[in-house]
Amino acid sequence: MGDGIARLPARNIPAPVGVSDHAAKVLAADLLPPGRYPALDDPEGWRRLVAKRDRVRAEESAPVLEKLQVDVEARTMGGRPVYVATPRGARLTNRGHVLLDIHGGALVFGGGEINVRFSAASMALRTGCVAYSIDYRVPPDHPYPAALDDCMEFYRDMLADHRPGEIVFSGASAGGNLAAAALLRARAEGLPMPAGAILRTPELDLTESGDSFHTLMGLDVVLPASLMEVNRLYAGGADLADPYLSPLFGDVSGFPPTWLQAGTRDIFLSNTVRMHRKLRAAGVRADLHVWEAMPHGGFGGAAPEDREVSAEMATFVASLG
Amino acid sequence: MGDGIARLPARNIPAPVGVSDHAAKVLAADLLPPGRYPALDDPEGWRRLVAKRDRVRAEESAPVLEKLQVDVEARTMGGRPVYVATPRGARLTNRGHVLLDIHGGALVFGGGEINVRFSAASMALRTGCVAYSIDYRVPPDHPYPAALDDCMEFYRDMLADHRPGEIVFSGASAGGNLAAAALLRARAEGLPMPAGAILRTPELDLTESGDSFHTLMGLDVVLPASLMEVNRLYAGGADLADPYLSPLFGDVSGFPPTWLQAGTRDIFLSNTVRMHRKLRAAGVRADLHVWEAMPHGGFGGAAPEDREVSAEMATFVASLG
Repeated sequence: MGDGIARLPARNIPAPVGVSDHAAKVLAADLLPPGRYPALDDPEGWRRLVAKRDRVRAEESAPVLEKLQVDVEARTMGGRPVYVATPRGARLTNRGHVLLDIHGGALVFGGGEINVRFSAASMALRTGCVAYSIDYRVPPDHPYPAALDDCMEFYRDMLADHRPGEIVFSGASAGGNLAAAALLRARAEGLPMPAGAILRTPELDLTESGDSFHTLMGLDVVLPASLMEVNRLYAGGADLADPYLSPLFGDVSGFPPTWLQAGTRDIFLSNTVRMHRKLRAAGVRADLHVWEAMPHGGFGGAAPEDREVSAEMATFVASLG
Repeated sequence: MGDGIARLPARNIPAPVGVSDHAAKVLAADLLPPGRYPALDDPEGWRRLVAKRDRVRAEESAPVLEKLQVDVEARTMGGRPVYVATPRGARLTNRGHVLLDIHGGALVFGGGEINVRFSAASMALRTGCVAYSIDYRVPPDHPYPAALDDCMEFYRDMLADHRPGEIVFSGASAGGNLAAAALLRARAEGLPMPAGAILRTPELDLTESGDSFHTLMGLDVVLPASLMEVNRLYAGGADLADPYLSPLFGDVSGFPPTWLQAGTRDIFLSNTVRMHRKLRAAGVRADLHVWEAMPHGGFGGAAPEDREVSAEMATFVASLG
């Protein structure tokens, strides 16, 4: 150090012991190969990549989705397809709130009917609420601010049917970016704040300025590399540091109670703890939860740690007025 | 990976940008040289090392202590010297609670009148409460369970003068170990629980099983190496995994509301988040706060981030019934 640069030698990090067997198995998987992306001026290449990734994800999700104890119906809200998932029977534990859910996928991937149905269904079951999830527009054909505009129209349509105090924003990864940006936009546009917000391992900083982008690189089995190329595609020339693109740099005063989650092997750990501090400094109720050795997005959904995440989210929603 | 071992190449971690200028200066300092310790069977060598380190620390603290707006008086409680610090004038913001403070220093260092006066005085000013801090016995002459026994007698004496609902345990690093172990002992011995507990960057696991002992090694400018040799000296042959030595492995049900703090460059980050999860799973109110790029123990006391830590601790104490 001395100049502020930490020069770390090559080293072997042993498998963590303070995690469930299921989590240990996830962590022992080979690192995903870093994404290889088309050039920014190759929209056809991007269209093919998005279609391919979304198809792979949908093929994985479809058989799981069929078995979930949830009913999903399709609507149009804000001019976009929205899927409304209702937990069956006693699984609907929270009738006082509904989720406005925004799916993840680096602001480009994760769309399409099956994937968005799955996002709604899984969040509905994890929180015990009816969950609405939007299939927002994505690049390369619809860069910023298309997705955020869609989310704003989605919120306006939600407000036609629900009191703001019933609505809880929810987003993981890129969905956390859009959820937080939508709160900034809602305040700027004079819309009421919702009852709360759930930001799971949120992509709040498209400039990737957090320390964990460096310290945890190579340790996060889900996000093994920078997403900067995808961020630039999304921005479409807009400033990556603009608070509507990187809500970490926004004024968060007046935000509703916010629940934040990350892991100690999550390259978005810095995003998460910095936003937590920022919210606390602004006098906002903000609850931070960090899981041991958890990578970006959790342990795949079926680990005991993932069930703990679900239980904490449900507890948070139930705590809201 | 594949076998669960993450093989990281040599790399340079740039200085973090999301911190205050003061914090950046602290992080740019040269790494402290790892402690070189005498052999376990060399008590005279340990006595000399403890005396030297405590003297150096006292020489640094004494001029600061003189200027603090706090009155400190000496007492004897639990058969040991205890220092009672009262913030002056309007700095005494919380008259409803008193701190039972246990100083840090790897369970061996940090004792002596000046150092313990300083621990009491700084915690009193940071929280706005009257703070009692004990100069507990340490190795090599007094290994486990001497320090914990002293803390138990200290708590019994506190209970003679204060309702349990007035008392808040507080400890940083090794002090967090003793504070949590004292809660386990108090429950086992039929003593009432205090109103709350403050565990700052706590040394809750003397087996050092957390992932951050590996992932953050070399990035924590305050704790650049394992403390295992010191842990063994403290244990004096007792099992390091015993919950009274490593409270992370204890049954924390019935613990009082607990406030936990760490940093993303703190090798005790895993200790902290694992205890947070454990408390939450046991149904205990537990509030987690993690600061960006903060090493073990904070940024030296004078950074804006350190003041945020103080403000959060004061808010927590004020929130207790």
